[in-house]
Amino acid sequence: MTEFADPLLLINFKTYLESTGKRAVELSKKVETVGKNEGVRVAVAPQFCDIEKVAASVDISVYAQHIDAVSPGAYTGHVLAESVKAAGADGTLINHSERQVLLRDVEKAVERARSAGLMTVVCAGTSRLAAAASLSEPDMVAIEPPELIGSGRAVSKENPEIVKDSVRRIRMVNPNVRILCGAGISTGDDVYAALQLGSQGVLVASGVVKAPKPEDVVADFCKAVRKLG
Amino acid sequence: MTEFADPLLLINFKTYLESTGKRAVELSKKVETVGKNEGVRVAVAPQFCDIEKVAASVDISVYAQHIDAVSPGAYTGHVLAESVKAAGADGTLINHSERQVLLRDVEKAVERARSAGLMTVVCAGTSRLAAAASLSEPDMVAIEPPELIGSGRAVSKENPEIVKDSVRRIRMVNPNVRILCGAGISTGDDVYAALQLGSQGVLVASGVVKAPKPEDVVADFCKAVRKLG
Amino acid sequence: MTEFADPLLLINFKTYLESTGKRAVELSKKVETVGKNEGVRVAVAPQFCDIEKVAASVDISVYAQHIDAVSPGAYTGHVLAESVKAAGADGTLINHSERQVLLRDVEKAVERARSAGLMTVVCAGTSRLAAAASLSEPDMVAIEPPELIGSGRAVSKENPEIVKDSVRRIRMVNPNVRILCGAGISTGDDVYAALQLGSQGVLVASGVVKAPKPEDVVADFCKAVRKLG
Amino acid sequence: MTEFADPLLLINFKTYLESTGKRAVELSKKVETVGKNEGVRVAVAPQFCDIEKVAASVDISVYAQHIDAVSPGAYTGHVLAESVKAAGADGTLINHSERQVLLRDVEKAVERARSAGLMTVVCAGTSRLAAAASLSEPDMVAIEPPELIGSGRAVSKENPEIVKDSVRRIRMVNPNVRILCGAGISTGDDVYAALQLGSQGVLVASGVVKAPKPEDVVADFCKAVRKLG
Repeated sequence: MTEFADPLLLINFKTYLESTGKRAVELSKKVETVGKNEGVRVAVAPQFCDIEKVAASVDISVYAQHIDAVSPGAYTGHVLAESVKAAGADGTLINHSERQVLLRDVEKAVERARSAGLMTVVCAGTSRLAAAASLSEPDMVAIEPPELIGSGRAVSKENPEIVKDSVRRIRMVNPNVRILCGAGISTGDDVYAALQLGSQGVLVASGVVKAPKPEDVVADFCKAVRKLG
Repeated sequence: MTEFADPLLLINFKTYLESTGKRAVELSKKVETVGKNEGVRVAVAPQFCDIEKVAASVDISVYAQHIDAVSPGAYTGHVLAESVKAAGADGTLINHSERQVLLRDVEKAVERARSAGLMTVVCAGTSRLAAAASLSEPDMVAIEPPELIGSGRAVSKENPEIVKDSVRRIRMVNPNVRILCGAGISTGDDVYAALQLGSQGVLVASGVVKAPKPEDVVADFCKAVRKLG
Repeated sequence: MTEFADPLLLINFKTYLESTGKRAVELSKKVETVGKNEGVRVAVAPQFCDIEKVAASVDISVYAQHIDAVSPGAYTGHVLAESVKAAGADGTLINHSERQVLLRDVEKAVERARSAGLMTVVCAGTSRLAAAASLSEPDMVAIEPPELIGSGRAVSKENPEIVKDSVRRIRMVNPNVRILCGAGISTGDDVYAALQLGSQGVLVASGVVKAPKPEDVVADFCKAVRKLG
Repeated sequence: MTEFADPLLLINFKTYLESTGKRAVELSKKVETVGKNEGVRVAVAPQFCDIEKVAASVDISVYAQHIDAVSPGAYTGHVLAESVKAAGADGTLINHSERQVLLRDVEKAVERARSAGLMTVVCAGTSRLAAAASLSEPDMVAIEPPELIGSGRAVSKENPEIVKDSVRRIRMVNPNVRILCGAGISTGDDVYAALQLGSQGVLVASGVVKAPKPEDVVADFCKAVRKLG
């Protein structure tokens, strides 16, 4: 991954009504437009049922919010990597704080995703777990202290030490993985601080999705990214 | 539900590659065509990512294979009833043997589905659990002994007692719920036996999806249904 | 069960330090003494590691807080009914709000407990689920609305309807099961109200365990029971 | 840990009837006697309900098979580190293949155990996960390929590469953790091979517990250890 010079803004749509169905497509288009205007790399993670129409509507990367560590077969109700890929997704989150998986399934899910041609972002709530997650060789790890998720208090300002410590611990065992940070990110300053601390992107949800004008928030984020450029 | 005279053939696509992506649409169209030709009520349950394009391609009912017992909000990676509905689904399975839920979530998921305008099929592996499930007042319950699922040995022939006992126990506590049975159903005879035992439809997966000519199997099923008419 | 005339006070020790190790034995002795003095049936549910020494120290019934729905075999870290019984337990809770199980495991766990000679108390958070649980034919069901657990606001006063509705729904499908209620019970008045509503006992935890003088609280409860006698 | 010169034989009692209740005590005494006679370090991991009486009967280390990642409080049915410690345990397994935990709970459980004064053995099924587990700084990690557990085919002979690879990966990130290996170990030769591959002990269950004469198997294991001395 040589694109570290090119930070990533990944917007997680969660299961908010504001980002469900047609509104997932509308929001994705807004995110795409701002990203293109600002020349910043942006991506979205809509719900499973919305992946295909979002992927068909925008040119930015689309991520699933989760896949199950299962192979094709008799797994009713599970999320198969191949299905997510066929719908047009480019990657997937794994082990988000709101959809945690067994230690074992971190590795299995990364392997399933890679085998289906999906990028992987493994989330972790502590710096040691972020380093542990990076041993499964995902494309990215995202450090998100669960107590700050959705809090409006940005990890990069409330707990800069956890970001720095994560970067240090992850780099000791994996020089290549892209490091994102998230939780509470809601302003350009939060993004700027996150990148200053050594992360190569942010994972954000309510800060954008629940904003009165999501496009303004994303634009603010993009300006922060360019300030660093 | 006064349509008990009108048995339902519900085809669960599971996470088989044979029923993923475009193949989900193709299979759904075949099922629809046979159902219409034979005048029998058929429905399909594709994977989440395939719901929207399947629903846009056919006129038969489309079911999700699972929903989570969550409301709109911060539930990354979960399956929201409203999202499934927005994609065009008419209903959902709940508590399939391969995606079991907590006792508590049976009721919550039925409520979430109803609130979003989805029909509900709660699955259970024993006759007592099927009766217990019917107390949450879903639209349908499906009795599927887990040891026969995918076995090719039909529940309606291998274990007719469990179907009869389920019908008896369910009717003691819920006169209105439609009763399906499933597990190992692969021929018209299996379907005929299932209906004879008092069920009002079948839930079937590999028997159709993995067949060399799924349309022939569905046609065979439909003829069995009409034999009873 | 003809002993309905004889209400049960079941004290759940949870994983409070106040009721761990030697303190589990001391608390159990206090509960026993008050119960005997007052002529009221009392029982305790200590942690797994404490069952044997509690059972060896008192003459009242001892319950496990949970068992797993597994048979003897290769189930490292699970709680085997036979092990709980061998330690001297008389029964077990199943599906407590803090240790919920799959719909399927309600029935399996009741069967495993019965097979090992243990009494069963299946917990449920709503009246419909309590009725559903009673179809698995446990010895008792306990209705505990999760939002009131540990709240200090007693179910029998805050939400008497749920107790009455549970009694009604349960009795429609199971005339024999003993009905307990719990959540927020902390005074004799709460116990009195619970019994007035048609329950045959209470399940209580912090109201006793966290009290400065647990024996006084239990005595207060016992007086409420006798008032009804 | 400077006692690496002193390999550990850790016998997991699982939930076998042969090692439940009084038989847990008898088996532990046999293990202790052989260990003392042979001058080899042995330990046992009985079920929760048996910890106290086993710990009171033998002088060897006693391990729980699991603890939950919870603090003292309202966690009905959970296994509290402090409770296990109060019963006399010296340590605990975490994340055994039969009782797996979330990525997050690996770290939490190690912290809870340490805080209660318990040694920790985190199990993992692959070499990368074993390395990941070692980042949480447990006292020991145990590599156990799940497909060989209970198979009678020893990991140290069937899959020596996984043991070597685990040792290599673990030592890159943690020089101090003791490395055990397990799965299918049933003869002294298996133990000898395991130690030759760089592990500092073995985790064994059915190979001892289900043997007609467990003491003979343990003696055979001990001789293999001494051969290396």
